[in-house]
Amino acid sequence: MLFTDMEEHFFTDPRYATVASTTITCRVHIAKGPLSQEAAGIAKRKRLKKIGFEPAWLRVDQFDQLKKALPAGTALHSTGSIVEDLRAVKSATEIAMIRRSVLANSEAFRRVLRRVRPRQSELEIAAELDYQMRVLGAEKPAFDTIVAAGARSALPHAQPTTQRLEGNELLLIDMGAMLDGYASDMTRVVYLGDPPKRIREIYRAVAEAQLAGIDAVRPGVAASKVDAAARNVLKRYKLDREFIHSTGHGLGLEIHESPKLGKKEKTKLKAGMAITIEPGAYIEGFGGVRIEDTVLVTETGCEVLTPTTKEFINL
Amino acid sequence: MLFTDMEEHFFTDPRYATVASTTITCRVHIAKGPLSQEAAGIAKRKRLKKIGFEPAWLRVDQFDQLKKALPAGTALHSTGSIVEDLRAVKSATEIAMIRRSVLANSEAFRRVLRRVRPRQSELEIAAELDYQMRVLGAEKPAFDTIVAAGARSALPHAQPTTQRLEGNELLLIDMGAMLDGYASDMTRVVYLGDPPKRIREIYRAVAEAQLAGIDAVRPGVAASKVDAAARNVLKRYKLDREFIHSTGHGLGLEIHESPKLGKKEKTKLKAGMAITIEPGAYIEGFGGVRIEDTVLVTETGCEVLTPTTKEFINL
Repeated sequence: MLFTDMEEHFFTDPRYATVASTTITCRVHIAKGPLSQEAAGIAKRKRLKKIGFEPAWLRVDQFDQLKKALPAGTALHSTGSIVEDLRAVKSATEIAMIRRSVLANSEAFRRVLRRVRPRQSELEIAAELDYQMRVLGAEKPAFDTIVAAGARSALPHAQPTTQRLEGNELLLIDMGAMLDGYASDMTRVVYLGDPPKRIREIYRAVAEAQLAGIDAVRPGVAASKVDAAARNVLKRYKLDREFIHSTGHGLGLEIHESPKLGKKEKTKLKAGMAITIEPGAYIEGFGGVRIEDTVLVTETGCEVLTPTTKEFINL
Repeated sequence: MLFTDMEEHFFTDPRYATVASTTITCRVHIAKGPLSQEAAGIAKRKRLKKIGFEPAWLRVDQFDQLKKALPAGTALHSTGSIVEDLRAVKSATEIAMIRRSVLANSEAFRRVLRRVRPRQSELEIAAELDYQMRVLGAEKPAFDTIVAAGARSALPHAQPTTQRLEGNELLLIDMGAMLDGYASDMTRVVYLGDPPKRIREIYRAVAEAQLAGIDAVRPGVAASKVDAAARNVLKRYKLDREFIHSTGHGLGLEIHESPKLGKKEKTKLKAGMAITIEPGAYIEGFGGVRIEDTVLVTETGCEVLTPTTKEFINL
């Protein structure tokens, strides 16, 4: 550990006094002014020499305020990514919560999908999905739900619009629940009508790439290898230039956590990591396909947590 | 301005290439690796000496990565809060969008409130509110909707729970829409049943404080004066120690923007600022009341944008 002889203090404002008193296990300070002033006061009183901070969770302005408020002999030390690294491997309790989040998410998708009909807008479908997730126990969506019809499915992070379904088009849905504080993440693409040959081919290529990615997941494998497994399949189908993002990411308390499953990520997978496997192929002006599951790295390989079918559904 | 002879570059990854090409007016760079590397490459090629950054929008780890990637002769300069300050005063177009956001929010509240009944849970009511906001055109809630029944109304930022309404209790709802990118914010407290005398007294005191705050809003007045106007009313009712937050905040593209309306804020209000006025009184274990409107500072005073009644509604 970076710090021996460590003390922990929690600073908040009076709005959160009651909640903090029942949920925080270390010493709680209720600050009436800026939290940085309060923290600096404690550092001074206790003659602390080193204060750890998380660089991924502190803005430059907050860092500057804190630094300015601290007494001369006290230094700020980055804790690097120790918290992120610890969080990448989930405990049994965390895995149970991610399972619940995944199941609520898939069930919300199922309930809404069977009612999807032409003339609905992307925004209406997104509203239904978010509503069902919450009825099923989610606090909220884990991220802005993506509903993208027709050519808009080629935008990997499309925001839903008032565009209405016309039929004979792709419908891409990327959604996740935040349930008991834990995220899930899933993408499915369905077709309204009878899909043309080219779209069936793209779907098959992406589905095969996704399975190849899943097959590569096991403890000790570098994240980049999983990415390569999915990417190579798309290469065979001449769709690798259309796969414009990485193959997946860890998830847990946040929707994007360590590890990242990209081309250059050397991190080795470990049992207990919860990750997504989500290759895609996007053709501007035409449409895109992405297939994504939430996957748990196990001692012997992996378990696909997402129960939703990957058959190409025609509505 | 801090920078003369200024160039603007926009960096993003391939997932956003299509959207960026249609929405960004300066030069767009699609980075395949980390954005900081790409930005540093441009700085080097163009021999830039100064690069501005916004300290409230850059994390310490991002700052460190960018600094490390830049050539020796290039320095990072904080732009302070120039963007935040510019954003505090809204244009006519922005005000029109905030009005629409406010109206959608109030209409969603109206639709849900008339269907509130005992045995519903806080979470179910929150899900209904969020759904109605979206049906009315919002992209999403502007923040996690607060629905707090009974004694939980004393937690200013309560998260909705599975707790079910029992009747004869307070119900506090704090909600806002994000519509066309602009936020609204409103809090109302209703009573399920016939409110006891003490609760009617607290409601009256907070309502009076809220009106006093609104009365104090005009161009040229220090934000702290508006806070004092509301706080002094609560003091007269011996409820100032139960008012544990500031009187309001600016809102726009974010739910919390400049100015802050707190005890020590010297910022002078200007016509075109959109702010909230939201005093409250919270009694632990008993209940809390907060009343909040979205308010526009005008040339001659202010306009309360929120149309929802402030009569103490009994359901």
